[in-house]
Amino acid sequence: MISRKDVLKMSGAGAFALAASRATELMAGATLMNGAAPTPPPDLRRLTTADLRALPKLKPAAAIRRTGRKRTFTLVLAPAMIEPLPGHSVQLRSVNGIAPGPVLRMTEGDDVEITVVNRLAQGTSIHWHGIPVPFPMDGAAMMSQQPIAAGQQFIYRWVAPQAGTYMYHSHYNDMEQADSVFGMIVVDPQDPGREPHYAVDVPIAVTSIDWEPARNIEAQAVLANSMLMPAMAVNPKADPNPGMGDAMERMDMVEYWCFNGKTFPATEPIRVKQDDLVRVRFANITHMTHPMHLHGHWFRWIAQDGAPLPDPRPMNTIPVDPGRTIDIDFIANNPGVWPLHCHIVSHMVDNRDLMSGLVTAVVYDGYSLPTMMQPYQTTTN
Amino acid sequence: MISRKDVLKMSGAGAFALAASRATELMAGATLMNGAAPTPPPDLRRLTTADLRALPKLKPAAAIRRTGRKRTFTLVLAPAMIEPLPGHSVQLRSVNGIAPGPVLRMTEGDDVEITVVNRLAQGTSIHWHGIPVPFPMDGAAMMSQQPIAAGQQFIYRWVAPQAGTYMYHSHYNDMEQADSVFGMIVVDPQDPGREPHYAVDVPIAVTSIDWEPARNIEAQAVLANSMLMPAMAVNPKADPNPGMGDAMERMDMVEYWCFNGKTFPATEPIRVKQDDLVRVRFANITHMTHPMHLHGHWFRWIAQDGAPLPDPRPMNTIPVDPGRTIDIDFIANNPGVWPLHCHIVSHMVDNRDLMSGLVTAVVYDGYSLPTMMQPYQTTTN
Amino acid sequence: MISRKDVLKMSGAGAFALAASRATELMAGATLMNGAAPTPPPDLRRLTTADLRALPKLKPAAAIRRTGRKRTFTLVLAPAMIEPLPGHSVQLRSVNGIAPGPVLRMTEGDDVEITVVNRLAQGTSIHWHGIPVPFPMDGAAMMSQQPIAAGQQFIYRWVAPQAGTYMYHSHYNDMEQADSVFGMIVVDPQDPGREPHYAVDVPIAVTSIDWEPARNIEAQAVLANSMLMPAMAVNPKADPNPGMGDAMERMDMVEYWCFNGKTFPATEPIRVKQDDLVRVRFANITHMTHPMHLHGHWFRWIAQDGAPLPDPRPMNTIPVDPGRTIDIDFIANNPGVWPLHCHIVSHMVDNRDLMSGLVTAVVYDGYSLPTMMQPYQTTTN
Repeated sequence: MISRKDVLKMSGAGAFALAASRATELMAGATLMNGAAPTPPPDLRRLTTADLRALPKLKPAAAIRRTGRKRTFTLVLAPAMIEPLPGHSVQLRSVNGIAPGPVLRMTEGDDVEITVVNRLAQGTSIHWHGIPVPFPMDGAAMMSQQPIAAGQQFIYRWVAPQAGTYMYHSHYNDMEQADSVFGMIVVDPQDPGREPHYAVDVPIAVTSIDWEPARNIEAQAVLANSMLMPAMAVNPKADPNPGMGDAMERMDMVEYWCFNGKTFPATEPIRVKQDDLVRVRFANITHMTHPMHLHGHWFRWIAQDGAPLPDPRPMNTIPVDPGRTIDIDFIANNPGVWPLHCHIVSHMVDNRDLMSGLVTAVVYDGYSLPTMMQPYQTTTN
Repeated sequence: MISRKDVLKMSGAGAFALAASRATELMAGATLMNGAAPTPPPDLRRLTTADLRALPKLKPAAAIRRTGRKRTFTLVLAPAMIEPLPGHSVQLRSVNGIAPGPVLRMTEGDDVEITVVNRLAQGTSIHWHGIPVPFPMDGAAMMSQQPIAAGQQFIYRWVAPQAGTYMYHSHYNDMEQADSVFGMIVVDPQDPGREPHYAVDVPIAVTSIDWEPARNIEAQAVLANSMLMPAMAVNPKADPNPGMGDAMERMDMVEYWCFNGKTFPATEPIRVKQDDLVRVRFANITHMTHPMHLHGHWFRWIAQDGAPLPDPRPMNTIPVDPGRTIDIDFIANNPGVWPLHCHIVSHMVDNRDLMSGLVTAVVYDGYSLPTMMQPYQTTTN
Repeated sequence: MISRKDVLKMSGAGAFALAASRATELMAGATLMNGAAPTPPPDLRRLTTADLRALPKLKPAAAIRRTGRKRTFTLVLAPAMIEPLPGHSVQLRSVNGIAPGPVLRMTEGDDVEITVVNRLAQGTSIHWHGIPVPFPMDGAAMMSQQPIAAGQQFIYRWVAPQAGTYMYHSHYNDMEQADSVFGMIVVDPQDPGREPHYAVDVPIAVTSIDWEPARNIEAQAVLANSMLMPAMAVNPKADPNPGMGDAMERMDMVEYWCFNGKTFPATEPIRVKQDDLVRVRFANITHMTHPMHLHGHWFRWIAQDGAPLPDPRPMNTIPVDPGRTIDIDFIANNPGVWPLHCHIVSHMVDNRDLMSGLVTAVVYDGYSLPTMMQPYQTTTN
């Protein structure tokens, strides 16, 4: 993809030399990619939502019994160097060394015990967002508990609720949330027959990471002897040209927009086989709503906030609001390589106009990864 | 909650002295608050949405007959000093001396007569948002009527529509809307049996009030001889540190985000008793969508724009868009003190990182108010 | 509507002279407009959603057969001077000389062939958003194909999917999208009986056009010898007063917000007759969600992304997210002139506080156009 700067230069008088050099590489005609054959005969079934509408719904739990099984987790909060794009690191508050933290998976009725160890320089508390825990376990600092002091730990205990997608995050202050003290919780049903069988089931945690050094508290110490601008200059997002893009877009671009802690093209692809039933679970801790769009397929919106929808609806773009979990599913009935991305343009390009941010690809068996994703994955198909 | 500045200082070399002094107070270990007992045995019923799904729906009106009852209201628009947080005042265009204005409550089929008295320095008109009034009563300036001139009045007459939540607001210009020439309208059904019985029924009008003196027109006269910065310095929102927070957050922080005209911790708590059925009605006049999140409970989304939903859905975070009314209900089945708040972080903290803005608490009988809310309420439980 | 500047001046000491001069014109009492009679006796049927709830749903396709009919379109991408408001032009990347491009209309099962001719200075590719095309036809640059080089063309072939509303847009870079390389696609059912008969059926493409010269690439050449500010000074949106409006609003105002390429009052009205069944189809390529509000009527949300809703719901404000198509319908049962507009205030006023942007009017037969719209239409009723 040609950059904004190049385009600008192309539009200026006498600047076609540079344009031509990049154009040679990027614009060598509209060749089909990925060894695509000529258009195959159309699959008429794919042109309606009939198959999707015929899928069974998620059945909500009528009641839950305790399993008697104890699930223990430990979440260690500590600063860590994180690479939203390999080669470009920021220091963040992390959970178990990653940001966002690990997905916690359990079954309805499990006895859950989570030890939160605070190795940050300030207090914290963890809120189990969407889970109807008893009041003392809610993790809302100054509401249900004093913050967990630096160097201390706290044990949260609750019983896993009805099957669905939930999240956990700091409820101490916004900088911890912004730094991705946040993760997803997936609860499976006691009776697996209440849900369709998913060949692929992908949780996607949506975060935004400021590249502003001032926001990265621990990083600030590292950068203490640096000027701000040089620090920014080593950052791939750090050269915004104030003459380009509108204010909204420039603002969005001071953040790494991430799926599971990575920004495109370092995001993990979703690998599927023809006829797979695929489930994607979104959880959004950012400050903006992201309308997630899938190419080539309709999907169903099947659940939100851990609760199945009584009326799953076919669509191809679903707004995922801050603080919400959204589950969708789709039938892998259209072989190829299909972008899945936020449709707010400034969340899917960087300030050089290269594709970046909240983008991944659904890649069918037998198809190669998009070229730009290949350096970040160990296999290319 | 420890402030951003403190955290920043904590992270700097040798700055732990100050941190320690605040930490002593705030981080003395993760003590449970509100006299919380150890975790009680879990209530399994609370772990599913089964009880919520079994609640009756709101039944929409098949037809409405006129009651023959005349309801008269007078709305006086005039400048007033308003305190979104006691001790901090801004001069706004108000309705009957408050901003937002009073809730107008009526029954389906009532004959409604509302006299709007304009004591502002400029024109106005009032739109009855969501109510299918006759054209001359729509209150859209330059569409259905000339503005009501300064010093004049106008009488609006219409019949109350089907039961639900509506709003009124200036449709003259955006500064009047921004200043909260706005209020809620609640219409009750002719047959109360069409709705479940709600022990608690709370309208929440969502507004944002700029603290920028330039936006507060009448305030500008007051401040005419002041420098801008000193005027800002007395304001709790007025010391944004450009090195902190991203651009989006800084922008949001130039406003008092309010529930019913108050910003947390001055917001009114929602007081409930165990097993109460609780209804909350949101109306949003701001320029942003607010995903409202309730801790500890699922709720049902039961109506929008005065129309019951055919399929109430369980959730715990509901986006409330500008110009929309949204009704939810929930069963008070989880005793404690539970935040209800917008999940956009910059709408729930101020620029010192203290909890602020679009936050309130659902407080069960027998539980104390959160400490920070107590100074603003006459009783603490 | 009185402007912000006037209001500001009115609020200053001794500035009432000017205020009075405009007030004489604009505030001559709250005269009803459009020859409105006194309030007629109320139509009780209009006060409930019963008639709306009784309407048939859109029936989704059970299956589609190929029609054997070939539909060919040619889309020529090239720079063009566009007037979002007559008299004020910007140079944009256009489709067939207009921005957004033409609506493509077809029937389920048609064989569609679209030749995209690239007369821009850079590459492009066109994505058929929401349509389950075969992979090689998806138009995602660097995913399914190399960009169509400047001066080249490419033929897309696919079969029209189930009836509904879709869109096409550049999937090459964000500047092309921002410039409105975008249009709507309407697919009709093979059996017209699957949809109610709509007397009026209006597609509304929502775009935002930056007035910043730096964003209008080709315009930059034109302006190369101009200073930025003089260039802005000829633009009706180009005189933002930094002392007015909050940051969010100022930001929004650097764009022309458009319905079908025009900003109010140049937008096309929606003309209806009493008892018409009216369908409006929205498609949003902007970076923000627009809550669209209709005065005087409830409508049903009947479809999204080309898929009928199983449970159409009555409402009067519908959020239209980026990348989504939304279909609504309503019964024309309330004669008059009714605004239909985005409820984010900064999208419906300009920086002088005059009504502008995402606004149009539903005008009943027998009623005159609002005065401010008349200069832009060839007939006034």
